[in-house]
Amino acid sequence: MDPGLLERYSSLAVRVGVNLQPGQDLYVHADVEHAEVARAVAEEAYRAGAHRVVVQYEDPAVRRSALIHAPLETLRTVPGWLYEALAEIERTGAALIRLTGNSDPKLFEGIDAERVAAVPLEYAKAARRVLLGGDVAWNIVAAPNPGWATQIFGEPDLERLWGALRVAMRLDTSDPVAAWRQQREMLARRAQALNALHADEIRFRGEGTDLSVGLLEQGLWASGSFRTRAGVEFMPNLPTEEVFTSPDRRRADGVVRTTRPLVMPRAGVLVEGLELRFEDGRIVEARADRGGDAVVAELDADEGARSLGEVALVDSSSRIRDAGVVFHDTLYDENAGSHIAWGQSLPTAIEDGTERDGDELFELGLNRSAVHTDVVIGGPGIDVAAITASGEVIPVIRDDAWVLETAAA
Amino acid sequence: MDPGLLERYSSLAVRVGVNLQPGQDLYVHADVEHAEVARAVAEEAYRAGAHRVVVQYEDPAVRRSALIHAPLETLRTVPGWLYEALAEIERTGAALIRLTGNSDPKLFEGIDAERVAAVPLEYAKAARRVLLGGDVAWNIVAAPNPGWATQIFGEPDLERLWGALRVAMRLDTSDPVAAWRQQREMLARRAQALNALHADEIRFRGEGTDLSVGLLEQGLWASGSFRTRAGVEFMPNLPTEEVFTSPDRRRADGVVRTTRPLVMPRAGVLVEGLELRFEDGRIVEARADRGGDAVVAELDADEGARSLGEVALVDSSSRIRDAGVVFHDTLYDENAGSHIAWGQSLPTAIEDGTERDGDELFELGLNRSAVHTDVVIGGPGIDVAAITASGEVIPVIRDDAWVLETAAA
Repeated sequence: MDPGLLERYSSLAVRVGVNLQPGQDLYVHADVEHAEVARAVAEEAYRAGAHRVVVQYEDPAVRRSALIHAPLETLRTVPGWLYEALAEIERTGAALIRLTGNSDPKLFEGIDAERVAAVPLEYAKAARRVLLGGDVAWNIVAAPNPGWATQIFGEPDLERLWGALRVAMRLDTSDPVAAWRQQREMLARRAQALNALHADEIRFRGEGTDLSVGLLEQGLWASGSFRTRAGVEFMPNLPTEEVFTSPDRRRADGVVRTTRPLVMPRAGVLVEGLELRFEDGRIVEARADRGGDAVVAELDADEGARSLGEVALVDSSSRIRDAGVVFHDTLYDENAGSHIAWGQSLPTAIEDGTERDGDELFELGLNRSAVHTDVVIGGPGIDVAAITASGEVIPVIRDDAWVLETAAA
Repeated sequence: MDPGLLERYSSLAVRVGVNLQPGQDLYVHADVEHAEVARAVAEEAYRAGAHRVVVQYEDPAVRRSALIHAPLETLRTVPGWLYEALAEIERTGAALIRLTGNSDPKLFEGIDAERVAAVPLEYAKAARRVLLGGDVAWNIVAAPNPGWATQIFGEPDLERLWGALRVAMRLDTSDPVAAWRQQREMLARRAQALNALHADEIRFRGEGTDLSVGLLEQGLWASGSFRTRAGVEFMPNLPTEEVFTSPDRRRADGVVRTTRPLVMPRAGVLVEGLELRFEDGRIVEARADRGGDAVVAELDADEGARSLGEVALVDSSSRIRDAGVVFHDTLYDENAGSHIAWGQSLPTAIEDGTERDGDELFELGLNRSAVHTDVVIGGPGIDVAAITASGEVIPVIRDDAWVLETAAA
């Protein structure tokens, strides 16, 4: 493997993802199996002038022991000092990078599902408050490891995984940090252009697909770039190729066929050739060439699972498809093309969304559910148009290329 | 490798080392390279009824980045929430296991020595207060890893290291936990018998050795077994084969020759055939067949380095010699035979030692120094006797066997 790849990849997380400032602290949350990437991130952060880098490792194997033996109360709580750590991250304006990439998806097999699903709810809420509070720049980035490579290729071919990331993450450009900053600006302009339309509906048309999704008056097209209260621009997700919004959960009609395989985020099941039929915002029919049962099971998970929580637009400038693999990681796979997600809406894609409570957002037309699964429905042959309240049809993506005019760079 | 070895070894740390009680929390401080042992310890702790096991991993490679790049102030402090974690360990009466075993002794080579030596002094003091405070049972145990095996054998032969531990840690007995509890009682009886003598001096005699070391009136022979305020008996060091005391730093006379090679704990230098001459408590001459320069350099480290901080008695019942290797780990190597240490005294081996401050202990006759290096001087052919104030000579070890009468089991 090109030894510079890991360095360039880590540099993206530090310099674009959380956009670390000199003198700032960085916290890295990682699994033990992510150590190679965590170390590279720490080194890059110190090179960028970090005051302190704290890597907090979790060990899935220790969690397995807890899942088997510990009292349920232990699984639902955390030690008190972890709240203090969260508060200190917020108080000192530290940045936070979370490494993901399950190294062994079978580790928890055979353990009581209720126990595996147990989460420290109060702590999770506190962590969410810190992430959405506006003082902390954060980023989630997948850490290549042998387990992840095995999920994709059936063998721990880490070199091949890095080869795919090299393309998908623009690590093959002369200056990936600059390339991603450009990408950030380009996506911001797309979101701006869409917001200027004040469209009432978004429509997908092509072979096997004719779907209209209603948009909300307060809805915003967002591009995955945020600013802290101190004015530092950061990108929580890398890669990101999308502009996205939270649609009106009550309005979606027509049929749609996925254009890429997907891996169900919880069940880990591969789904291909999925066809969905929508009526009045709800999925009323779902079938697939492969893995359809897992989809139906999830759609029955709760009341909100059959309605949409996200619509996102991606064109052929995305590098994900070029990489030529199914990454088994939503962050990558959803960015292969325009996509929709059933389940939970995104409060960041609506005016003042993070300041409104759940009931208010639901009243406005957002969706709520314990699930959120993205399926790619765009690509060659699928055109996307925005429809205004007066019925005007404005092309957004045609022949897989973005055509809606955006402001000059 | 016998798959049960790791389990039995971890079980010793949990059931004898900290003697974990049902419902108790356990904290494990480990390096990332110790993950295999940390996981086994966590599993054993949950099997023993732990309420929660928290493994806090340090990453030496991340520390290396900090040593190279971070401000010196960062190296000398820790985040505030780590104090909260310490306080919570003490408040909840959790137990603490520290895994040691440097996986790559060359990791910090070439880095400015002042930076490598930088420690968060205030935090280290707080941690020490918690360990000596009486509420927390703790234990230090070496975690076998390829780097440690390489130090011993010149190659990462982990299986061979486990073979040596199997013997040294009595993992080859039918019930190692029971064997170590017996060992604990046996050492306690030896300490009790020595304390009953109220000896004024301890004397080593054999080929190349004729050394008298003065003892303190307030000195105590200890056996490495402690009780928490709640009455739980724990053993901070495993293995332990010794009874030990802090001698009078002002009284040591004669010559002594080491009977085992030693590895200087800081310099990592192997020393063989070391001969020391003492006058009025101080080492006035030191020479060795190999590595003598490193010894002399350390003896010149500070004012207290040439005086004794410890005398410890070990007989042939020790398993360390049977293992047939130099472990490059003081915890193991010092237990191969009776030993002395130049440098810092042990406040736990004197009446009310942990409640007195440093000046008071120094007044009483204890030693102080930044170093503490153990050298084995006992073994076949070396006899040990206690001399009372009235001049009576009482044999303690003869022909490498303990002969001082102890109470019945």
